Amino acid sequence: MSLRARAYSQLFARSDRGGKLSSVNRFMVVVILAAVAVTILSTEAAFRTSNRQLLILVELGFGVIFAIEYGARVWAIAEEQGEGSAMVRRLRFMVSPMAILDLVVVLATLSPFFVSDAAIIRLVRLFRLAALAKFGRFSLALQELGRAVSERRFELGVTMALAGVLLLFSATALYWAEHEVQPEAFGSIPRALWWSVITLTTVGYGDVSPITALGKFLASLVAISGIGLVAMPTAIMAGAFSDAMQRRRELAAAEELGEDTDEMA
Amino acid sequence: MSLRARAYSQLFARSDRGGKLSSVNRFMVVVILAAVAVTILSTEAAFRTSNRQLLILVELGFGVIFAIEYGARVWAIAEEQGEGSAMVRRLRFMVSPMAILDLVVVLATLSPFFVSDAAIIRLVRLFRLAALAKFGRFSLALQELGRAVSERRFELGVTMALAGVLLLFSATALYWAEHEVQPEAFGSIPRALWWSVITLTTVGYGDVSPITALGKFLASLVAISGIGLVAMPTAIMAGAFSDAMQRRRELAAAEELGEDTDEMA
Amino acid sequence: MSLRARAYSQLFARSDRGGKLSSVNRFMVVVILAAVAVTILSTEAAFRTSNRQLLILVELGFGVIFAIEYGARVWAIAEEQGEGSAMVRRLRFMVSPMAILDLVVVLATLSPFFVSDAAIIRLVRLFRLAALAKFGRFSLALQELGRAVSERRFELGVTMALAGVLLLFSATALYWAEHEVQPEAFGSIPRALWWSVITLTTVGYGDVSPITALGKFLASLVAISGIGLVAMPTAIMAGAFSDAMQRRRELAAAEELGEDTDEMA
Amino acid sequence: MSLRARAYSQLFARSDRGGKLSSVNRFMVVVILAAVAVTILSTEAAFRTSNRQLLILVELGFGVIFAIEYGARVWAIAEEQGEGSAMVRRLRFMVSPMAILDLVVVLATLSPFFVSDAAIIRLVRLFRLAALAKFGRFSLALQELGRAVSERRFELGVTMALAGVLLLFSATALYWAEHEVQPEAFGSIPRALWWSVITLTTVGYGDVSPITALGKFLASLVAISGIGLVAMPTAIMAGAFSDAMQRRRELAAAEELGEDTDEMA
Repeated sequence: MSLRARAYSQLFARSDRGGKLSSVNRFMVVVILAAVAVTILSTEAAFRTSNRQLLILVELGFGVIFAIEYGARVWAIAEEQGEGSAMVRRLRFMVSPMAILDLVVVLATLSPFFVSDAAIIRLVRLFRLAALAKFGRFSLALQELGRAVSERRFELGVTMALAGVLLLFSATALYWAEHEVQPEAFGSIPRALWWSVITLTTVGYGDVSPITALGKFLASLVAISGIGLVAMPTAIMAGAFSDAMQRRRELAAAEELGEDTDEMA
Repeated sequence: MSLRARAYSQLFARSDRGGKLSSVNRFMVVVILAAVAVTILSTEAAFRTSNRQLLILVELGFGVIFAIEYGARVWAIAEEQGEGSAMVRRLRFMVSPMAILDLVVVLATLSPFFVSDAAIIRLVRLFRLAALAKFGRFSLALQELGRAVSERRFELGVTMALAGVLLLFSATALYWAEHEVQPEAFGSIPRALWWSVITLTTVGYGDVSPITALGKFLASLVAISGIGLVAMPTAIMAGAFSDAMQRRRELAAAEELGEDTDEMA
Repeated sequence: MSLRARAYSQLFARSDRGGKLSSVNRFMVVVILAAVAVTILSTEAAFRTSNRQLLILVELGFGVIFAIEYGARVWAIAEEQGEGSAMVRRLRFMVSPMAILDLVVVLATLSPFFVSDAAIIRLVRLFRLAALAKFGRFSLALQELGRAVSERRFELGVTMALAGVLLLFSATALYWAEHEVQPEAFGSIPRALWWSVITLTTVGYGDVSPITALGKFLASLVAISGIGLVAMPTAIMAGAFSDAMQRRRELAAAEELGEDTDEMA
Repeated sequence: MSLRARAYSQLFARSDRGGKLSSVNRFMVVVILAAVAVTILSTEAAFRTSNRQLLILVELGFGVIFAIEYGARVWAIAEEQGEGSAMVRRLRFMVSPMAILDLVVVLATLSPFFVSDAAIIRLVRLFRLAALAKFGRFSLALQELGRAVSERRFELGVTMALAGVLLLFSATALYWAEHEVQPEAFGSIPRALWWSVITLTTVGYGDVSPITALGKFLASLVAISGIGLVAMPTAIMAGAFSDAMQRRRELAAAEELGEDTDEMA
């Protein structure tokens, strides 16, 4: 196998490895995770200023790795079966969404050296990670999960409509009860909606809470009905998830059978 | 088909469209949602004052649309099969709850032009939305859900009685432990009940919390038992919901079969 | 049927009414609920002082009703099958736990007229309610629930042991990370345990929370593991509850069958 | 049976008692729990200073008990079947992890008499408890639970990856919306992650919450999606736990059968 064929196999390997990533792609996952971690940490001013030199070097390193990978992909794509000359296939690849994402990642990595305060752009690398996740077992699991949720989109819709009405009614009730004593927090329905969401999801920051007896009584009813609100989507999601996992197992079993047959052949 | 017959079919179409709303009704759903959104936003003083002219125009527009729809319904109802002259049928329709709700919506939309600070009345439009929701798939899903919950009303009642006793006992315990050091928050059992509800539903605002060692110990027991309190209605609601959805699917399948038969006929 | 026989049937009716309470007992449930509500409200000083006269009358009324009921029971118990004279049977009844509870309720209702600040004693009426709940469908449901939970006491024990270890470890971790900067909140493991319980149950008052980076990191791990902590007992309780309800339905069906047979006979 | 044989049977008894601990080991469980409780309480300065004399005596007592147990184990291990002289077997035992843990516990108990501020070291006793928990029914339940969770490690991994992405995205969104007005709380993504975790787990301390309209809108979406985040691992853990318990029951039934057969033999 030529070097280019090996590079093609390593860089583009899809599900033909039994759901496993090639070693180059596995290395890229690690690099991307590291690059994301560095981006997150470097938003912290204290960390950024005390490691300025190091961060520039590290980011330059990431940029070089991403650039080399991009170049290698453009070079190796010529191995792909298809019509047209190698150059035509390369150009066709370069305008595909995946290749554009690759290029964006390279540019985003190098951009902060030209544009200031652009560190956050580097988080596009997460989408790059998502593109890699499209290969392998992880992707199958996500697809199954997505399908199961989509099959229950009507149930989720009904639940969300009920939840929306409950949110709106509780916000209106508290607006009515508290807007005179707490104009800052309950002075309008949009303001009261913030309280509704934080209460019905049982987060309960406490930055806003009723202080009148009537407001507390209404808020108690809202808090108790919040249990039901959480119960219904939880039940639907749990059902969807357990269905998806059941299907994934059956699929995995079928795939394994298929592999055995291949090996026998 | 005459214009009136077409208007009747568009305005009153019930479940004879395979659970789908007519295009006029679909437009009305959008109008009502927009009207509700405008009402919510206009409770915010800053938004109201800076868009006074626009809001008056928009609300006037909604009022005209609702008035036209109401007039069209009264006019088109004459198409309905039934005894009595067209006028008798119109009067019979005008005293039906649905038509009265329609009229209330029209009046509520126009009321703030005569009565000040009456914007909140416009939220009756939400009930108008509920009346529209009575047609179609959404309504079937809600009916099934209601039936499933009603079948388990005894279980829910037992759970709620247990929850009520737990709320009362925890409020009494914290009243006993903390009423001397925090008379404002725990000075009576009704005051302590506010703390109980917010703790047992795991909302936990933090506006009220025990400060003595004994109070904290009792509150810890209450918080831990709150997990069980949430678990039981969640389990019941989840069961009821999954039953309702199962039944809905079967119903939908049966309906589809019925439609196919109709089409064949 | 003599008056005494009728009184006996009304006051002592057990499950021989197909799980329904007699009308006298139903009236007593309402009276007790009202008495409990009055007791709760009268712990609020503002309410107590402004309704002093009314409260004394109402409590006296409750006292008279409870005293009459107690007297009627002692009188009517003579109807019960059993050896010994009517007086012997009455004395035997008066030393039974249920009759003593009745007497305690009567005394507790009248006590605040003699002892000051004893209003809370009146909450023993709730136990009186529990005694009434022993008759009827409610009691069967509770028994079934109790049995189902008791069958899973081992699972609940394992879960609670794990939860206890998790509570202790997280308290120790935060004590270690924060006791120097927040000696008031995390100065000892018992103090940190208050934080642990409030975090792991997802109540989250916010009266105590970590402020160091290390403390926040550890607290994040604890908060995330709290999801699992809640998941396990919820799953067990939900299973136990759904089992109990299943069994109750089967029991109810069997009972109905039995009643039909009785009616036929 | 010689004294040493009896000591061996009491100190090392494994699962040959039908999942029950020997009386000596049961006594040690109580001693360890008491020692852990004393350690926890003695981190509280007020308690420590007012009971200094008593605590020294109690800890000395625990040290003596642990030392005697360790000595007895070393002495009794000679009863074990195996090659080599009694001394060789003793030395082999003394370098086993369990024996080293025993020794560490003895030293940790006695250490604070030599090293100051080392009370927390004594919590290693909890591991000693875990070692004892390896015998008996409790251990089987934990093993089954561990196996069930490990069988679903892939599902848990997918869920955790999704949760991680959701955490990161919500932290980035709030960092973007709030870092200018609240630099202390949202000035970097790591800082915003603290808010993300506390919100998505529905703990909601309220030490950090958005104050801008945009921040509140984004936080509302995050809080609502937090319901789904909690729903998925809950569903997986519940499934794993119910599987584990099912298997444990079957295992227990099989074991009982085995015991009956043994008794018959």
